[in-house]
Amino acid sequence: MNVKDIIREIQANREEGIKDLYLVACGGSLVDMYLSEYFLKSEAKQMRVSLYTSNEFVHAVPKALGSHSLVVVCSHGGNTKESVEAAKTAQEHGAATITLTHNETGALISNSDYNILYKWGEETDVKDNPMAIIFNIAVEALHSTEGYDNYEKVMKGLEQVNTIIAKARVQVAERAKAFAEKYQHENMFYVLSSGASYGHAYGFSICSLMEMQWVHASAIHSGEYFHGPFEVTDKETPYILLMNEGRTRPLDERALTFLKQYGEKIEVVDCKELGINTIDDEVVEFFNPIVFYSILSVYRAELAEIRKHPLETRRYMGKVAY
Amino acid sequence: MNVKDIIREIQANREEGIKDLYLVACGGSLVDMYLSEYFLKSEAKQMRVSLYTSNEFVHAVPKALGSHSLVVVCSHGGNTKESVEAAKTAQEHGAATITLTHNETGALISNSDYNILYKWGEETDVKDNPMAIIFNIAVEALHSTEGYDNYEKVMKGLEQVNTIIAKARVQVAERAKAFAEKYQHENMFYVLSSGASYGHAYGFSICSLMEMQWVHASAIHSGEYFHGPFEVTDKETPYILLMNEGRTRPLDERALTFLKQYGEKIEVVDCKELGINTIDDEVVEFFNPIVFYSILSVYRAELAEIRKHPLETRRYMGKVAY
Repeated sequence: MNVKDIIREIQANREEGIKDLYLVACGGSLVDMYLSEYFLKSEAKQMRVSLYTSNEFVHAVPKALGSHSLVVVCSHGGNTKESVEAAKTAQEHGAATITLTHNETGALISNSDYNILYKWGEETDVKDNPMAIIFNIAVEALHSTEGYDNYEKVMKGLEQVNTIIAKARVQVAERAKAFAEKYQHENMFYVLSSGASYGHAYGFSICSLMEMQWVHASAIHSGEYFHGPFEVTDKETPYILLMNEGRTRPLDERALTFLKQYGEKIEVVDCKELGINTIDDEVVEFFNPIVFYSILSVYRAELAEIRKHPLETRRYMGKVAY
Repeated sequence: MNVKDIIREIQANREEGIKDLYLVACGGSLVDMYLSEYFLKSEAKQMRVSLYTSNEFVHAVPKALGSHSLVVVCSHGGNTKESVEAAKTAQEHGAATITLTHNETGALISNSDYNILYKWGEETDVKDNPMAIIFNIAVEALHSTEGYDNYEKVMKGLEQVNTIIAKARVQVAERAKAFAEKYQHENMFYVLSSGASYGHAYGFSICSLMEMQWVHASAIHSGEYFHGPFEVTDKETPYILLMNEGRTRPLDERALTFLKQYGEKIEVVDCKELGINTIDDEVVEFFNPIVFYSILSVYRAELAEIRKHPLETRRYMGKVAY
């Protein structure tokens, strides 16, 4: 069953329709949801959206959760216990539940109304990966309740983005190697972005750097940077700036201007320069984080290689009790 | 005019009442708003809430912004240009606007329907400081639209919390000195919390450590910690854990258990141990960040003293163009 049909069926079976959308997951899967939170915060005229890390959703159940709620829960491995609990909580409260996982035997599946078994890996089209699927769910949910003027433009963008990424991966191949060479001995990075991509600044920090490379990291919103965080800027500290195309680009540009003057170790990944503008201006901003995810995966692979620290190495996750 | 009367007047003058609340500010003032975002995400059955850094609100104006919106904008100095612009944007879209500042000549004031000139400094009652006032606005807005069962309990809590803080400040005086002594040479901290206080983990990171001490910092949600960030945990890296009383306490406790086993430099500030439980169980969680703000100010003052780095010292903010 495709996303459109799932949303249509949920709407048809619920008296009040979908009034609020909860995006619930942990770590990397939660990162995949920030785009949809940003999208609905910005575009929805009535629909409510909330993003929760699974364990907080379970322990501090929002009072609005009910039959007019749609809860989307994602877990790559399908057995993240907090996320399985979150899906159960959603169902106990009568909410419609869509789960996403890459594991066809994941416990998550038996705790939802609909499960989407998504594709994964570099050879897949990104529109079949969780960030884009969840975005598609948010867009369909919005369009089917209150209408969304740019619906067709988003749908077209979802068809375009994989081609953009394929070209951009080639474009960054050499600079990703240079990045890894230059920054291999650093032990802390700041990652800046804004708008739809702030979540991916957070994601690159907690997943790619902290979890996969055991390197310290801190995500800062490009707009917030000037209200405290910029005081630590110096020529020794490395900054990765994820520059969006779209409405919040001026925030990223302002950060870049400052960093160029007062910093020195600055790595810019710029969706505009990487060719994202074939997507319609009115919706292009929502595609930045989809591009960033794939492109920064090239950077992290090079970092892992030169640091001889494979991306899969863990010391705690799945190895000790917690 | 007090908060209750302001909200009553706004409700009376707007056909649809207040349907959505936007919390808009930068840096430390934005930190003061996370509590209210968490509160409404959790407690509101219909009202929408969104939190925005001012410049993003201005550049990516949410489509729902209109006559049924209440926009709260806060700037301590009253002249933060992004926040002044945000208040103008709100007014241009017909939203009701409440501004908060400590500066009676701030430009913010002439761009709002109502301004609250708040008190500041250790000698003031925290209920007259911005975090509590904004929380009061959120509670009044909710209660006056859809009703809020725990309204009286929150109001009582607002009367109680200053006394709790006064005692807690004495209680932490020696340990804040010990903290400063022990950690004065560290150049990076992680700050963890959950629920209503996650915003204060962020706030202590960006304001107290980065802005005021030029020390690197990264805020991590206690629930998210186990889904990536915990992989950097070791006996060399300092962690400050802000433990909440209330529904999300189990998330903080879980982080503590892990940190005790795999970390070594751990500073715990625990609202339960600091006597927050005189506030009613059903609302106590919302008071954690109010207590943390005041208590962590004791810690940062000791850190500033021993590091001979006054809290007011800046190299960029207000000193260079940006």
